[in-house]
Amino acid sequence: MADPTCLFCRIIAREIPATLVYEDDLVVAFRDIAPQVPVHVLIVPREHLVGLDGLEEAHRTLVGHIALVAQRLARELGVAETGYRLVANCGPNAGQTVFHLHFHLLGGAPMAGKMV
Amino acid sequence: MADPTCLFCRIIAREIPATLVYEDDLVVAFRDIAPQVPVHVLIVPREHLVGLDGLEEAHRTLVGHIALVAQRLARELGVAETGYRLVANCGPNAGQTVFHLHFHLLGGAPMAGKMV
Repeated sequence: MADPTCLFCRIIAREIPATLVYEDDLVVAFRDIAPQVPVHVLIVPREHLVGLDGLEEAHRTLVGHIALVAQRLARELGVAETGYRLVANCGPNAGQTVFHLHFHLLGGAPMAGKMV
Repeated sequence: MADPTCLFCRIIAREIPATLVYEDDLVVAFRDIAPQVPVHVLIVPREHLVGLDGLEEAHRTLVGHIALVAQRLARELGVAETGYRLVANCGPNAGQTVFHLHFHLLGGAPMAGKMV
């Protein structure tokens, strides 16, 4: 299931260090190494899916779980009240750099309405 | 279930016009009236949920369904290969303006890695 050449699979396997903030049977969440706002966490499924394009019918509940983990982490990291953004990038125009599905949880500073 | 004061509930009820690109039993998708990129579509559950913070356990499959609809629309709208971004904003710092859960599907132009 894991891809030994994938950065996020290696983080999940504890072969590469990361600052974990949450984990359970389905997902791992850790701080982005180049945060765009004070709270910038990546929520990553343990299963190696290349991105949104790799989702299949069987992953419906996984994505919902990621959204609920985002909601929980927003509270724990103190940005639930001030607001947060959840982002998934897929492919070159979106600037996807790691081809393992991940959702960015962003918060802690005003982001206005601009998303690109 | 619908909130008569909610813009998106009124679009779903066909009381306010919008350019629909998809609909099914769970969600409606329509063009954003102020697109930030050539393809800018909002995917909105029929159920009035205030945002990510309004999600409960029962909505796991709904959010997964939204991701699968995004994947499908990216293909139909011709941005699956070039790339697309899926964004949900919650609260003031994220610039949420309509308090009915919605996911932005963005594509059709380079967005680089910047998400705020």
